[in-house]
Amino acid sequence: MDIRIDRASDAPLYIQIHNQIREAIRRGDLATGQRLPPERELAARLGVNRTTVVNAYRELAADGLVEAHVGRGTIVSQHWAEDGVGQAVRPINWAQLSAVHPQWPHAALVQEIAELAAQPGVISFAGGVPAPELCPVDAFRQAAVEFLESAPGWLADCPAEGLYPLRQWLSAWMGAAGVHSTPDHILITTGATQSLDLIARAFIEPDDAVIVENATPLGAYQRFHAARARLIGVPLDGGGMRIEALADALSRHRPKFIYTLPTFQNPTGLTLEPARRTELLRLAGEYGVPVIEDDPYSALSYDGPAPPSLKALDEHGHVIYLGTFSKLLFPGLRLGWILAPRPAIERLARIKRGTDLFTGTLAQGITLYYLERADWQSHLDKLRTAYRLRRDAMVEALRRYGPPGLHWRAPQGGFYLWVNLPEGCPARRLLAEAGRAGVAFLPGEAFCVESDGQYTIRLNFSYAAPEAIGEGIRRLSQAMSNVLARQRDWTDRPAPTRAIV
Amino acid sequence: MDIRIDRASDAPLYIQIHNQIREAIRRGDLATGQRLPPERELAARLGVNRTTVVNAYRELAADGLVEAHVGRGTIVSQHWAEDGVGQAVRPINWAQLSAVHPQWPHAALVQEIAELAAQPGVISFAGGVPAPELCPVDAFRQAAVEFLESAPGWLADCPAEGLYPLRQWLSAWMGAAGVHSTPDHILITTGATQSLDLIARAFIEPDDAVIVENATPLGAYQRFHAARARLIGVPLDGGGMRIEALADALSRHRPKFIYTLPTFQNPTGLTLEPARRTELLRLAGEYGVPVIEDDPYSALSYDGPAPPSLKALDEHGHVIYLGTFSKLLFPGLRLGWILAPRPAIERLARIKRGTDLFTGTLAQGITLYYLERADWQSHLDKLRTAYRLRRDAMVEALRRYGPPGLHWRAPQGGFYLWVNLPEGCPARRLLAEAGRAGVAFLPGEAFCVESDGQYTIRLNFSYAAPEAIGEGIRRLSQAMSNVLARQRDWTDRPAPTRAIV
Repeated sequence: MDIRIDRASDAPLYIQIHNQIREAIRRGDLATGQRLPPERELAARLGVNRTTVVNAYRELAADGLVEAHVGRGTIVSQHWAEDGVGQAVRPINWAQLSAVHPQWPHAALVQEIAELAAQPGVISFAGGVPAPELCPVDAFRQAAVEFLESAPGWLADCPAEGLYPLRQWLSAWMGAAGVHSTPDHILITTGATQSLDLIARAFIEPDDAVIVENATPLGAYQRFHAARARLIGVPLDGGGMRIEALADALSRHRPKFIYTLPTFQNPTGLTLEPARRTELLRLAGEYGVPVIEDDPYSALSYDGPAPPSLKALDEHGHVIYLGTFSKLLFPGLRLGWILAPRPAIERLARIKRGTDLFTGTLAQGITLYYLERADWQSHLDKLRTAYRLRRDAMVEALRRYGPPGLHWRAPQGGFYLWVNLPEGCPARRLLAEAGRAGVAFLPGEAFCVESDGQYTIRLNFSYAAPEAIGEGIRRLSQAMSNVLARQRDWTDRPAPTRAIV
Repeated sequence: MDIRIDRASDAPLYIQIHNQIREAIRRGDLATGQRLPPERELAARLGVNRTTVVNAYRELAADGLVEAHVGRGTIVSQHWAEDGVGQAVRPINWAQLSAVHPQWPHAALVQEIAELAAQPGVISFAGGVPAPELCPVDAFRQAAVEFLESAPGWLADCPAEGLYPLRQWLSAWMGAAGVHSTPDHILITTGATQSLDLIARAFIEPDDAVIVENATPLGAYQRFHAARARLIGVPLDGGGMRIEALADALSRHRPKFIYTLPTFQNPTGLTLEPARRTELLRLAGEYGVPVIEDDPYSALSYDGPAPPSLKALDEHGHVIYLGTFSKLLFPGLRLGWILAPRPAIERLARIKRGTDLFTGTLAQGITLYYLERADWQSHLDKLRTAYRLRRDAMVEALRRYGPPGLHWRAPQGGFYLWVNLPEGCPARRLLAEAGRAGVAFLPGEAFCVESDGQYTIRLNFSYAAPEAIGEGIRRLSQAMSNVLARQRDWTDRPAPTRAIV
């Protein structure tokens, strides 16, 4: 509730407060049963006398809009208004009205960290977005002009699958990476989040098992969880998903599908090794289970080319491939695609049509003109060079500043470095300390569907500039040392004078 | 299945066909259990000898990919492939895998009519899109350049609710129409279809009653039906929804919400009269039922200003308002908004975040720059002038050409004219005749949730130019006369020689 006091106004302060709360109740911003802030608290917030708030609340009570309850405070009333003819008006309780209350795991934690990361002076390793300075704004401006000069009929209409020439371009580009398709095998979406949403809507029924990596991207975790899937996490090692554990999970859980991000994984940076790719597809074929391959990062390889995608190896049509431009161009674009066997595309396109008809043609058309006119390969080379520098800066800084007992594996591509913390330095405790030191990251548990990950963190190296990366890791390492020092104090000291958390 | 014959190739024709079908099966485009086209039919389609197709199918059978069944034709086999180590590969049956099979009422009919409308020479009154030539392409190009020159951080990130300055602009514009809000009461969506999708996801549980007008927009009908709502249709008369019928429906069905398009309605062109607006809100207050007000057309009024929106009259926070730029700018933009009490916006924004994170910033940013720089009022005036001419052209042509017994009411705004057909001329029979005459429309039954509307049609007058409108109505009237004449023949003649449908 946002109340503004205007000291220049003629209206007394208590009337100003009364009027604004009254309006908030009428608009429905304050629902029936909701509690107003305690008088003393609101007075302090507004910098007014407590009596002023008491008077405002009395006026509201006189209006019949609120009721004071001993011990419970001041509550918005059930029957709070009368219309012209004296008949009771029943307000809407929007929370009770709702059909779905999907649980989004870790939403509050992520929100809190996002707020920390946005504070001035804080160096953020928490996000997952590309460096804004690498966005090809000039070439996009040129493409926008040419697209809107040609002013094709695309401004009016578009099939649910997306603009045909953009699908042609994607089919050709993916063909160069060994994926054979036609434009009819491609559906353009408003980004990977929508792709996952369509997949969840098309295939998940409550209590369906879904196999994911442990750890897995938070967006997929949240979306599948909200669809009430049972998430089965398969452990990872240096070569990616452990195949014997996958085989075991398949035989025990009969999942609806396997969801995997095999190349430069989020959050671990790991890559599924080529022999395991073949094994994974063999298992998918044996069990007749589809594989959802999420592949935002394979173009961002820093030590030689990435291994072939699962889709490139998919001889029997088991793989649904998800691509996105968010990491290669800019996230505000909201443009991704699904490449899959035609029957799957037909079903997904039908759901897409009911969801938002089709993806906006401004983003599709301008991107198509950009891709056809700009030097796409040079752009990707530029990204690879820039991000390789950032990865190297982070690895170098971890080597220089990191305390003993810190373990990590330098990723060969993508955006993330996964760190195992030393004993005595759990991620949650480090998070608080790092926040005070001006550096942000995501704790590993946010990505783990099995109870796990308390001693891991994910560091993003795509967003901050190389110098900031060095300074951020210095701060983070200092924060680790502080946590470890306190931990030692705690252990050594027989009777601590106060709790430290 | 798309098979191409290359007569210049060295490969025999039957091998070419065999290879392409084999690939389609391997890709999963042809699923297990699916039937191949009959040999004779495929031969005719490809312009080859039937024996060629027989030989191709024999090869596929030899591969174990298909089986011939007497009376059922040639079917894709269950166990159709063996991998390297001789283990069976189980293909995916995508149809069986699916979680949801939402029913989209009238989808096939609309698809068929859309295909007719797209044929060259056909004059279409079937669509619901604005005239492409009225799209402000030049001003949009200018706005795109300026937006991408300023290159704000918006390319990277955006809250789920949308760009704040665009919500500010909308709040101010709606304020001028009597709707008081702050930007926090607004959620930007990818168009009205997504707005309806979010509403359906947030509020509808299977078997919930939802009150709509009879007739109601097809998109809402389809979306609510797919969410398994029970749709209750309230009849309309010249003043819009009949209030006593609404009161009856409220008391009998206790609906989750009332969905209404009160101003220049789709499909009927009717406008809810001011006194009924007050009555509708009084009933919503009495029953504590939310009202979803869909308002794409109120800015397009041709005979003086539209009455105030329900939201402008909504003193107690019962109304969720849906707006869209699709009719005022261009449909490919995919940009709409929801204005509602803050608790409803919070819930819808959370669902939006899980659906597609946020609406693409290229469409949001370019549109904001356009709205801030272009003369929006002049653009709206231009639209009103152009569409008034088209409405008048349609009314004039109906007067001139229409057969006796035709009834309509000239709408005061929007895109549609609703016509009651004469006895003996049902819409389905007219549709076939009109198709032959080169004119397309939608039969009224596509919009009616109650079994009703067989003698009504919806004519769109926004898309075709005024001269084309005259010619289209001439063709349509001729088609009506033909249907009526055949009907008379039918009635007069004791023994018709053949059935005519």
